[in-house]
Amino acid sequence: MLGVCYYPEHWPEQIWARDAQRMRDLGLTYVRIGEFAWGRLEKSEGQFTWEWMDRAIDTLGEAGLKVVLGTPTATPPKWLCEKYPDILPVDTHTGQRRDFGSRRHYDFSSETYLVQAERISAAMAQRYGSHLHVAGWQTDNELCCHDTTQSASPAARDAFRIWCAERYGTVEALNAAWGNVFWSMEYDSFDQIELPFFTVCETNPAHRLAFRRFASDQVVRFHDVMIAAIRAHAGEGQWVTHNIIPPATTGVDNAGLTRGLDFVSYDNYPLGFSDQLMARAPASDWQPFMRTGHPDLAALNFDSVRGLSKGAWWVMEQQPGPVNWAPHNPRPAPGMIRHWTLQAFAHGAACVAYFRWRQVPFAQEQMHAGLLRPDDQRAPAWPEVEQVVREMALLGDLSAVSEKAPVALLVDPASAWVDDIERQGAGYRYPAVVFQYYGALRALGLDVDILPAGDVPLDGYKLIVAPTLAMPDETTVGTLRASDGLLLFGPRSGAKTQEFSISDGLPPGPLREFVPVKVIAVETLRPDCTGGLHYQGEHFESGRWRETIEAGDTEIVATYEDGAPAAIRSGRSTYIATLTDDAFLKSVLVRLCAEANIPVTPLPPTLRLRRRGDLSFAFNLSDESTHAPASEDAEFVIGGRQIEPFGVAVWRSAAI
Amino acid sequence: MLGVCYYPEHWPEQIWARDAQRMRDLGLTYVRIGEFAWGRLEKSEGQFTWEWMDRAIDTLGEAGLKVVLGTPTATPPKWLCEKYPDILPVDTHTGQRRDFGSRRHYDFSSETYLVQAERISAAMAQRYGSHLHVAGWQTDNELCCHDTTQSASPAARDAFRIWCAERYGTVEALNAAWGNVFWSMEYDSFDQIELPFFTVCETNPAHRLAFRRFASDQVVRFHDVMIAAIRAHAGEGQWVTHNIIPPATTGVDNAGLTRGLDFVSYDNYPLGFSDQLMARAPASDWQPFMRTGHPDLAALNFDSVRGLSKGAWWVMEQQPGPVNWAPHNPRPAPGMIRHWTLQAFAHGAACVAYFRWRQVPFAQEQMHAGLLRPDDQRAPAWPEVEQVVREMALLGDLSAVSEKAPVALLVDPASAWVDDIERQGAGYRYPAVVFQYYGALRALGLDVDILPAGDVPLDGYKLIVAPTLAMPDETTVGTLRASDGLLLFGPRSGAKTQEFSISDGLPPGPLREFVPVKVIAVETLRPDCTGGLHYQGEHFESGRWRETIEAGDTEIVATYEDGAPAAIRSGRSTYIATLTDDAFLKSVLVRLCAEANIPVTPLPPTLRLRRRGDLSFAFNLSDESTHAPASEDAEFVIGGRQIEPFGVAVWRSAAI
Amino acid sequence: MLGVCYYPEHWPEQIWARDAQRMRDLGLTYVRIGEFAWGRLEKSEGQFTWEWMDRAIDTLGEAGLKVVLGTPTATPPKWLCEKYPDILPVDTHTGQRRDFGSRRHYDFSSETYLVQAERISAAMAQRYGSHLHVAGWQTDNELCCHDTTQSASPAARDAFRIWCAERYGTVEALNAAWGNVFWSMEYDSFDQIELPFFTVCETNPAHRLAFRRFASDQVVRFHDVMIAAIRAHAGEGQWVTHNIIPPATTGVDNAGLTRGLDFVSYDNYPLGFSDQLMARAPASDWQPFMRTGHPDLAALNFDSVRGLSKGAWWVMEQQPGPVNWAPHNPRPAPGMIRHWTLQAFAHGAACVAYFRWRQVPFAQEQMHAGLLRPDDQRAPAWPEVEQVVREMALLGDLSAVSEKAPVALLVDPASAWVDDIERQGAGYRYPAVVFQYYGALRALGLDVDILPAGDVPLDGYKLIVAPTLAMPDETTVGTLRASDGLLLFGPRSGAKTQEFSISDGLPPGPLREFVPVKVIAVETLRPDCTGGLHYQGEHFESGRWRETIEAGDTEIVATYEDGAPAAIRSGRSTYIATLTDDAFLKSVLVRLCAEANIPVTPLPPTLRLRRRGDLSFAFNLSDESTHAPASEDAEFVIGGRQIEPFGVAVWRSAAI
Repeated sequence: MLGVCYYPEHWPEQIWARDAQRMRDLGLTYVRIGEFAWGRLEKSEGQFTWEWMDRAIDTLGEAGLKVVLGTPTATPPKWLCEKYPDILPVDTHTGQRRDFGSRRHYDFSSETYLVQAERISAAMAQRYGSHLHVAGWQTDNELCCHDTTQSASPAARDAFRIWCAERYGTVEALNAAWGNVFWSMEYDSFDQIELPFFTVCETNPAHRLAFRRFASDQVVRFHDVMIAAIRAHAGEGQWVTHNIIPPATTGVDNAGLTRGLDFVSYDNYPLGFSDQLMARAPASDWQPFMRTGHPDLAALNFDSVRGLSKGAWWVMEQQPGPVNWAPHNPRPAPGMIRHWTLQAFAHGAACVAYFRWRQVPFAQEQMHAGLLRPDDQRAPAWPEVEQVVREMALLGDLSAVSEKAPVALLVDPASAWVDDIERQGAGYRYPAVVFQYYGALRALGLDVDILPAGDVPLDGYKLIVAPTLAMPDETTVGTLRASDGLLLFGPRSGAKTQEFSISDGLPPGPLREFVPVKVIAVETLRPDCTGGLHYQGEHFESGRWRETIEAGDTEIVATYEDGAPAAIRSGRSTYIATLTDDAFLKSVLVRLCAEANIPVTPLPPTLRLRRRGDLSFAFNLSDESTHAPASEDAEFVIGGRQIEPFGVAVWRSAAI
Repeated sequence: MLGVCYYPEHWPEQIWARDAQRMRDLGLTYVRIGEFAWGRLEKSEGQFTWEWMDRAIDTLGEAGLKVVLGTPTATPPKWLCEKYPDILPVDTHTGQRRDFGSRRHYDFSSETYLVQAERISAAMAQRYGSHLHVAGWQTDNELCCHDTTQSASPAARDAFRIWCAERYGTVEALNAAWGNVFWSMEYDSFDQIELPFFTVCETNPAHRLAFRRFASDQVVRFHDVMIAAIRAHAGEGQWVTHNIIPPATTGVDNAGLTRGLDFVSYDNYPLGFSDQLMARAPASDWQPFMRTGHPDLAALNFDSVRGLSKGAWWVMEQQPGPVNWAPHNPRPAPGMIRHWTLQAFAHGAACVAYFRWRQVPFAQEQMHAGLLRPDDQRAPAWPEVEQVVREMALLGDLSAVSEKAPVALLVDPASAWVDDIERQGAGYRYPAVVFQYYGALRALGLDVDILPAGDVPLDGYKLIVAPTLAMPDETTVGTLRASDGLLLFGPRSGAKTQEFSISDGLPPGPLREFVPVKVIAVETLRPDCTGGLHYQGEHFESGRWRETIEAGDTEIVATYEDGAPAAIRSGRSTYIATLTDDAFLKSVLVRLCAEANIPVTPLPPTLRLRRRGDLSFAFNLSDESTHAPASEDAEFVIGGRQIEPFGVAVWRSAAI
Repeated sequence: MLGVCYYPEHWPEQIWARDAQRMRDLGLTYVRIGEFAWGRLEKSEGQFTWEWMDRAIDTLGEAGLKVVLGTPTATPPKWLCEKYPDILPVDTHTGQRRDFGSRRHYDFSSETYLVQAERISAAMAQRYGSHLHVAGWQTDNELCCHDTTQSASPAARDAFRIWCAERYGTVEALNAAWGNVFWSMEYDSFDQIELPFFTVCETNPAHRLAFRRFASDQVVRFHDVMIAAIRAHAGEGQWVTHNIIPPATTGVDNAGLTRGLDFVSYDNYPLGFSDQLMARAPASDWQPFMRTGHPDLAALNFDSVRGLSKGAWWVMEQQPGPVNWAPHNPRPAPGMIRHWTLQAFAHGAACVAYFRWRQVPFAQEQMHAGLLRPDDQRAPAWPEVEQVVREMALLGDLSAVSEKAPVALLVDPASAWVDDIERQGAGYRYPAVVFQYYGALRALGLDVDILPAGDVPLDGYKLIVAPTLAMPDETTVGTLRASDGLLLFGPRSGAKTQEFSISDGLPPGPLREFVPVKVIAVETLRPDCTGGLHYQGEHFESGRWRETIEAGDTEIVATYEDGAPAAIRSGRSTYIATLTDDAFLKSVLVRLCAEANIPVTPLPPTLRLRRRGDLSFAFNLSDESTHAPASEDAEFVIGGRQIEPFGVAVWRSAAI
């Protein structure tokens, strides 16, 4: 299904009905509204003005659309900020208050704001919880966007002290857990604990880890209260979702954040995110993809969100043209709106909603394209959406399809925290490590389930890849133990205890039952200064992060330039003790897939595959046509054997 | 005429007379003094010590020099800052007070400072308004230098609220004008409006535009009060000027700022400004010009100031050797002091004053060269000034000459504000766009009048070039309508309404009467990732900023690589919908000039031309001699047909 | 002798004895403890808990080790910061308080902290001053590290005012000395003086110089009080030292700082320091040295510390493996721990202590290697230390050896302050200039004494090199006058008076008795835009900093591309008026050494020499073996004529 994001408050009421009719005529099912409208819904505390919203919902519903109602807690209005100035967050870099005038100007630790946000959410749910046309709810909007997970406010400090007291019980236990004897950092009471900012040099990594955990917990706590406020009044059948930004960018435990939702939504901006990702890439690498996005970036986020959602998920905002917020904002290549939409469905989406209906000519996002231009004419995306509507009918009902991919890729927030906190080498960035492993899998034509490490069962996966599991907990180790596939671990795995010490008995610590080695030293290198790697008689590159390991009784699979072990095999587990070039990763994966009986299809950079049910999707990111890697018996549902530039082909067949 | 900047307070009184005599002997006419001397003129509030200034003026005047008297408001003394700490400005990036200890430490919105600055200006004018030797006045010094146009002070906030109330009348009108319904940004009263700083993410562009306008208005208001304070006491014949820095750098409406002056002055530092401009240029581009300055930069500023001054203008400070403030400070190539001086006269200057008389061995500017060295010996610039004195006699009286250039280039502060506020693509920088168009014109040997868009009549120009007019107002549209030359508009023209919305009916909005197209989308690209441009059978490059246009009934002049229109012609108007390479611009301009009957002289990068009256000036920026592009009948006044390295030739002829 | 740094408070008391025995078995003599243990020694003001420290010292001493006891003033505990919050420093860039949570969180101007730090130092000295096993004391730890020399605290401001009053006597004298007449910066009283931060543009360089001097004086004052507190109680034979970081990095007068010590110690981290130094070097320059360190960097610091120490000196902390704090942290090449240790002895060290005994698994430095791994096994450094122990026995007792090098290289803090304060060209950085001269000397196989300019006698040196003496005082000029070697001065020498004005009669001011020229102008160029240099019929490069000089009666030794003098000779003095390429410097030095009868041995970048007594040491930084440049009669003590990769050879001979 398809949808769109709409802001009735931005437009004259007389055009609502026509807008609704055009949405319906285009073939859209859902329309999201309301998520920034607090100022128009409550003029001062308790003085609600629901009437216009009533009319907007009725108008949309009467046209046959289903409404997704956003609670407006991302934008507390000015009167609220003036009445309760303690809701404002504090910048952790400058110590300055972050004021009203944009959005997300609230502190997750403000008890005042928690009450206010719960109040408006509950009031809205009370009014519309039984509304016929309201299909479901979106909490807030893009939680944690704009670097808001952490705040250096007094509210955060006070709440952190309580959080510490609850976690550690006694200050002596906290001192011991953090190793505060180092540099005379011991506290005498929880009231002495400050936030880990504004010090002379680096603070204790355990201190920072605790604050990261706390900050994540505060976001989850806030969000859970919002969900509960809605559910208390939501009618039967009304679901609750939230639209997350790329899960790797917020510093939050995404599994925790989304646990209470019916399903997870994602806001998909392939060009803007890719422009940021490849900001330092040479032009020759960037130019081919500047109007398509990096071939693996949207897919990474799709697969991540599917993993969080445990099944159906939505694209709540889909880029329909140039956006306004990246350093450079190209237009999508012709056909890419259709391409991205079909790609989302190939990766399991249940609905794709475009952001936004009509480009708004004023305020911050006036340069952000819509399905309609500001002059109410159809924007270039419009015919592509029309095409998608036609094509989705050909695909049939995919909602029941939820089979597993052959490969699971494990991610966790703790590995990102470890990397952010302990920047042992500037060339190791956890998100980039995950992206490299994911890209290597995708370049082999593999479907991948990206799963949050933890209580997610891993049985049934033929290959389980953990690019890094820096701080695996007992639960994660348990799921690995209970799994039955091949295991591949990347470097830095098992590096730390839960309190940010070096793992007992050296890394990989609790993973030693799979990888019986000891990491006795780590070296980090400048990305442009690499060493060698010998594997299967071929030469590859090792760099950025290189571990010296005692390989024990394991089988040495690859060696460094000096003959020391660089990758080992033990039972069903492989451990790669270094970051490498892409070619090495692919080479290792090809052999593991062969062993695991997973067919691979090596692909050029501009072609990607994805299966859903009995359908195979091929996505051509090139400006030239290409050949679909379909078997001879393939029955094409969309497109054909020759895929047009930026095009998509979908077929049914026994094998690819 | 020539002059010099002098600081009697820096030197023992006993050498003043000898200094004055040497100035006169060198052939100087004017000497500017006083503009930083507040601390020596008023020891505490109301306790004036004019006597030394009396003696200084008398000494200079008796030697036959005319004094330009600067009011010292750029440097309020310490006692004043202690007594009235609310005069200090606040940094808009950090929120920190900007303290005493350098210069320009005052807030344009401080009513206290307005009173104090008016008081010292009036007192000075009262004392010297009828002084025989005082020819005129300079207000303050380099207003807005050091990023002082904007301040985040309480004074600025309070004044901004009043300004908003005056502009919009009701807060509802302001909310509507800014589109504050977006993100629940609506205000209930003007007292709620904060400055557009220190928020979570970007503020409303309309909010920022209003603050830019307000900040510019505050500077103009301050300056107008200073001018009035002087005029109230200045004797007949005493004129008032101000020395501006490069007009593109201050964020102020320069036309407004200079409107009350008798003429405008400019501080010309070709090497320092060029080092900053070309900081990221490859060495091969920079090295040829590191000791001459970029061939078009000083000229751009000369032509801009002439446009503001509506005729005669001054160089109030001319770099006479290495300066102290750029990242790198080369010495000028031999002959460049003479070269720059003649260049200023070629571009219409009435006087060039060197900064400074003698290099001062102490304080912030001790590494800034003068006409004399710190040891009182003649610096390398001295003989070059002697040469200029001789050569100016050959040129004759140019003061009556004020004819128009064939080409007008329109600039406006609003286009710069739009660019600063809406950085839609990092590759679009308004000053760079203006500079590229100007450079293309100059490389064709054309004289250019740079005019502030607005109430300046445009009739009589054969070609009118607007590199961008992002937010043209009714007045500007009227002058364009009343003009009779060919019109050339660059991209982003007519992009916005006066309140920073997308223009009605899409861009170019109010310019559609000239350019009947619609800009339906904008894409911005990384500068190193370009697309193609087809024009007149040749291939060029389009990049950084590319608009998709509906060309309607216009003639398509150039197309993108996909055949879509990239430049159109309608009647006398040409619209280029993208930024391009230099070659394309020159190619378009050559054809337009041919159509307009403007002769062009394509020049190498190291040669530039300029006419004044019946004189043609040629400037050789190369370290090799070159041939003057003079007609056979040319009668050389300075130099000859072969121009020496870094040299100048001047001739009279019917045609070049 | 060898030692190690140990933190008994980090480990269970039951393993102390075994640790001590293993240290002794390894062949270590000294063990440093205590320098961060304040929190464990004093639980609240006056409540001391010495007992564990008593037992630790006894345990170590009974194993035959000598204890170096560090006073813990680098880490005031939390209770102290809470009781006396005025001890915390203020960041000079942001104005923000630098809080508890890491280390060095105290203000050198806090009188409160001075009292507290003296109190704990005295208490510790009182308790252990007569302890049999305590050989000596280390004050604090790495004073000024983490940019702590300057603070923008109220305490600093108040103390600075007093310091100014003491230095200048009257505010009129200060105004005159600083040239405050410029920009109306004159003060009426010392109470008006603020710190030179947070102004609109640059403050008076004389103001900044005074604050730099003051800040340095505050550090020295603090340190002298600490030394005195220890000496008041220290037993006979107990010495006092301090472990400095690279002397060029702190902005402090190192000669003053170390004057009261018995000897100076240095913390040697070749890889981390080199990674920072070469952060922007191309990979081809960096990769060969990423696991050895830059060939001249450790040597530079060794020679600097020997100069400060006036004889014996220590490495108090020697990197034993990868560290944790540089942007990239490679492992040392095999053999480098031994290599660096022998190198320190070759450069005159009396003891090398490794940091640390056992890698600590928690807190900030958990990724910093030790001699033991966190799992108590021997780290890769261990066998290298065993080798050093054996080899040191072969070298014999070097303690009496203290002969002079043939070449002295003069450095001073004022030249660094001048550079920091007056960044006339981004390509001139004083530490880099010193490093270039030092590197040229070392590449010629020369031993160099690096001496602090001032009251250090220079007689007996055959060649005295001053890469820059920007602000030479009378004492320095006197030592130069009394010297009898050839003198070589680099550019910017004699540039400034003691109060940061241009030198009287132009630079080189007081050095004109050696270099009778006048620097009439300075130009600074972009590092990639160079000019030519003619010398001895060959062509070299001149760039970054180029002075125009009046050469007077001197002999012109080298000329710029335009024939102007670039280097001159007068009597025994040579002056190079520009920064140059390395080849030119070496060429000049070869000729001067020939004249001075100093034999040179031109070396490849991967080979370095150093003599101590009758021993010659050769250090091979290459991963290939190389030939030792030993004479035929050489008698090898360590290694042989063929030096293994990363190896060392030591021999006795009459000549090399």
